[in-house]
Amino acid sequence: MRVVKQINELRQTIKQLKGNQSDTSVGFVPTMGYLHAGHASLMEAARKQTDIVVLSIFVNPLQFGPNEDFDKYPRDHERDLKLAEQAGVDIVFLPEVSEMYPRKIKTAVSVAGVTERLCGASRPGHFDGVATVVSKLFNIVKPNKVFFGMKDAQQIAVIRQMVDDLNMDITVVPCPTLREEDGLALSSRNVYLSAEERKQALVLSSSLRLAEQWIATDRLPADEVKERVIRHISEAPLGRIDYVEILTYPGLEPVESGAAPESLIVALAVKFGTTRLIDNVIVEMGS
Amino acid sequence: MRVVKQINELRQTIKQLKGNQSDTSVGFVPTMGYLHAGHASLMEAARKQTDIVVLSIFVNPLQFGPNEDFDKYPRDHERDLKLAEQAGVDIVFLPEVSEMYPRKIKTAVSVAGVTERLCGASRPGHFDGVATVVSKLFNIVKPNKVFFGMKDAQQIAVIRQMVDDLNMDITVVPCPTLREEDGLALSSRNVYLSAEERKQALVLSSSLRLAEQWIATDRLPADEVKERVIRHISEAPLGRIDYVEILTYPGLEPVESGAAPESLIVALAVKFGTTRLIDNVIVEMGS
Repeated sequence: MRVVKQINELRQTIKQLKGNQSDTSVGFVPTMGYLHAGHASLMEAARKQTDIVVLSIFVNPLQFGPNEDFDKYPRDHERDLKLAEQAGVDIVFLPEVSEMYPRKIKTAVSVAGVTERLCGASRPGHFDGVATVVSKLFNIVKPNKVFFGMKDAQQIAVIRQMVDDLNMDITVVPCPTLREEDGLALSSRNVYLSAEERKQALVLSSSLRLAEQWIATDRLPADEVKERVIRHISEAPLGRIDYVEILTYPGLEPVESGAAPESLIVALAVKFGTTRLIDNVIVEMGS
Repeated sequence: MRVVKQINELRQTIKQLKGNQSDTSVGFVPTMGYLHAGHASLMEAARKQTDIVVLSIFVNPLQFGPNEDFDKYPRDHERDLKLAEQAGVDIVFLPEVSEMYPRKIKTAVSVAGVTERLCGASRPGHFDGVATVVSKLFNIVKPNKVFFGMKDAQQIAVIRQMVDDLNMDITVVPCPTLREEDGLALSSRNVYLSAEERKQALVLSSSLRLAEQWIATDRLPADEVKERVIRHISEAPLGRIDYVEILTYPGLEPVESGAAPESLIVALAVKFGTTRLIDNVIVEMGS
């Protein structure tokens, strides 16, 4: 496994590994590091599906708001590299901020529509920052397939819209959310939680399980489900709801009464202290 | 020479021409068609510098304002294809609007700074439309080198900024403006001019020649040169000035008094009837 910090070196290393074979495929897993089993599952999917696996670890300042946790976002490169090695990654790209943004960036990639709700509403500018850095990374790595976790379902919707709209020759592969045994979705931010917060945070996954049942089995209307989810989360006194939304998937549009979308997403963001956790479930509506 | 209308077919054709050689270079000339000798010079530059030359002809609705000339922009595919063939183009990409925009596009690429003045000020949204369609075309063609004419100097500045900011692995090659013998810069829009307008339109190139002399030889300050240019253009009664600007090049920043930039651009836009003509000259300041 090679670890490179410079864009030029990364390009050369990929070229070298590809050799003269123009049909060698590149799989790419962009991350912010502090890797957990969720990331490992993305790397393993890439390992299975593509010839050369590139992992990037970059905490992108552009996608953090002024009062968000850019500075204290957890970092542990040594552990990350071990995990990447175990997962069979070929190249780790570990750039400094100055390598990615040598001067003030004047170009922005922005995606309308799918960014307006959920985290896009709570974190203005966040998805412009994501779309812009992901565009940069795609242009640097030139992957055939990219792997993202479904925990950030809205991020996947944004990337897919961008890839589609801008004719990027890339396949976006969504991978299932990984969970602790008790149901908590894996997240680098879980490390911030106190023991009591950690316990109460189970309310996210448990309310999603209930919501799935209320929608798919009991056929309750979206408004009713939303109210029940809010009531359920309120049973965790340390949690403050940022949003609870039920939208069409993957369009992320409001569910119109009487409409019968094929898939819905129930998405949550709940704060415990300063730690903001997100989770979601996709409910296939069948017939 | 092959003429293709579908994105998939274009990708396959390029792949096929490249064969298994991963180091075959692709040169790309994006145009709106109605080709003239200026475009031919871009295709010839591409022919000399790259292995496979792709020309695109696409009048991009996204970069036209609601009251601009999208519908009546001149088109003549038959003549264009002959010119492309003569210039040694390998592939002409001639997509319909529905191929480039099969549904409402939600993603925008926008470049701040260099787009605020000159044509960016007169044509709001124009350069977002340019940056977005050029991003799409770059992702479709995947060129190594792209060729643009210096008549659209601001367009080159925008594309360069975008390529640089987003780490596109592409070299932007600016090519000199071609002119009629009497000095008029070649433009597809010249066809709109009446005989009298055509005669008076020489005021653009003649004022640029004078401005160059006033700046480089006479060392007059920018404000004074701008005033003189405006006075000179006013001698053509059919012309209405859209802008006359003297800016640093390639930064396109105002010239601060006392500063000594290496290069300046004198840029003009003048309307004759409904026809808007642009022209510019880069003045190297030397020492």
